[in-house]
Amino acid sequence: MSISVTVLAGGVGGARLAHGLARALPGGDLTCVVNVGDDTERHGLHVSPDLDTVMYTLAGLDDEERGWGVTGESYAVLDQLARLGEDTWFTLGDRDLATHVVRTARLRQGRPLSEVTAGLAASLGVDARLLPVTDDPVRTLVGTPSGTLAFQEYFVRRRHADAVLDLRFDGVEAARPAPGVLDAVRDADLLVVAPSNPFLSVEPVLAVPGVREAVLGSGARRVAVSPIVGGRAVKGPAAQILESLGHDVSALGVARLYADLVDVMVIDDADAALTASITDLGLDVVVTDTIMVGADGRERLARDLVGLVAR
Amino acid sequence: MSISVTVLAGGVGGARLAHGLARALPGGDLTCVVNVGDDTERHGLHVSPDLDTVMYTLAGLDDEERGWGVTGESYAVLDQLARLGEDTWFTLGDRDLATHVVRTARLRQGRPLSEVTAGLAASLGVDARLLPVTDDPVRTLVGTPSGTLAFQEYFVRRRHADAVLDLRFDGVEAARPAPGVLDAVRDADLLVVAPSNPFLSVEPVLAVPGVREAVLGSGARRVAVSPIVGGRAVKGPAAQILESLGHDVSALGVARLYADLVDVMVIDDADAALTASITDLGLDVVVTDTIMVGADGRERLARDLVGLVAR
Repeated sequence: MSISVTVLAGGVGGARLAHGLARALPGGDLTCVVNVGDDTERHGLHVSPDLDTVMYTLAGLDDEERGWGVTGESYAVLDQLARLGEDTWFTLGDRDLATHVVRTARLRQGRPLSEVTAGLAASLGVDARLLPVTDDPVRTLVGTPSGTLAFQEYFVRRRHADAVLDLRFDGVEAARPAPGVLDAVRDADLLVVAPSNPFLSVEPVLAVPGVREAVLGSGARRVAVSPIVGGRAVKGPAAQILESLGHDVSALGVARLYADLVDVMVIDDADAALTASITDLGLDVVVTDTIMVGADGRERLARDLVGLVAR
Repeated sequence: MSISVTVLAGGVGGARLAHGLARALPGGDLTCVVNVGDDTERHGLHVSPDLDTVMYTLAGLDDEERGWGVTGESYAVLDQLARLGEDTWFTLGDRDLATHVVRTARLRQGRPLSEVTAGLAASLGVDARLLPVTDDPVRTLVGTPSGTLAFQEYFVRRRHADAVLDLRFDGVEAARPAPGVLDAVRDADLLVVAPSNPFLSVEPVLAVPGVREAVLGSGARRVAVSPIVGGRAVKGPAAQILESLGHDVSALGVARLYADLVDVMVIDDADAALTASITDLGLDVVVTDTIMVGADGRERLARDLVGLVAR
């Protein structure tokens, strides 16, 4: 089945679904448009956590149990960085660090992030096209009762324990979509909003000027998968943020966020009772098992999504 | 015994002697002025091999058998760098790489190499003062029958197999001695030219404007230790270079290079027969065991040198 699929993704949820799609579409055309709002600099190295999570997962190197980083990782460099007086609250494994060393060196040579990412992904044997949503710097800033925090300060250092009062994507107004992003969104047969955090992962992708418009004008069958199952986030702080920003903490709350953007909402079996309410928003609803356990679970959900194109 | 000692050093020989001096002078005042002509950039990281060899050795972390790097080292990052398409002929261990990551980040913040080096050494518990001869970029270029080679290209990649026709220290004319270098040379009680390569290690230290003059005008007892024993280099290409540049491949050949610079030449027991010829150059001669085996061997030679101050 030769169809083209584009996924808008953040970290883990997007990465797993992308991996399932890569398995469901052998020889198919898969593009992942990935958030860069959580990019950061650690020890002078440019770290792109979401891009790397998707890349490692597509390469089959992801640590599934932990949800980030490379499987079988070691930490010799981090131990030594601590000994040399560096602040090491942001855990970097040795293999992962090699990615950041190479990325940083190539960026400093003046090469754009999209080109550098393509090179890294190719070296790891990734067939899918992996695109940062933009080559320009966009940094998510999290407003909390303790003040505005840089994203990784909020997410990793403070373990997303602060209430989120507002979000800003610093630099996004001036950011341009990376080469290929708008075409991938407009020309896909299937456009998937991954079950990533709507505020921290999906919104900073849509906020890059031109991307939201491309989704709205896309000829693709547009599908969003709810990251909220049974009123809880599969992973991360999506539930708390929905609540603190005044949204319904449910797949319905997520559907309301995406109602103008997609045609189909995919929700978990556990949320079947919300079908009618979501249908009332003007969305088609697919009820299925959205918890992607193992490579087979990822592929199974991916096949459900690919099946929507034929309808 | 409270005397101040300054060592002009390159890599291994200088590092081992510096370690011996640190042991022989507990609470004493030891300054190492180190070559930076072999500094290089690998994978976008600033590597200072001589500074690091001295630092690791003074910290007790050196791999004595191999002569460079950190003992008990692992290579997870290097393996992954290769996988990501990087050229990895310059071996970097994981712990060593942490040094380069931190150095590079701090240099990019605009801090001078001498300050960065002091911070790294302090973190590793090094009591001695470790000074790059200059904070300015100096790069050794090696003229060979195959053309001019960057130093590490000659030394590591091509395993110093090329004949050396000439040496240039790119940038040295504009280089200024790092803060503290000239005072350490002028004010020491004992000034030691380490048994490092005269051309690749010592000359690029002396060539920084002001350093040779400071040695010539120093009030210190000035001593050089021959890196040539029994007509062979203890380590590295010193013998080949003496030969290709037309010098006598012996402790006498080395003594001729340093005759105007030092007061005392220290040669190995194996070269005792050269004593008269070296004395004829106007130098005092000390004959002793200069092969520094283990920490005890390093300290024993250091005590011989310290003893020269009392004479």
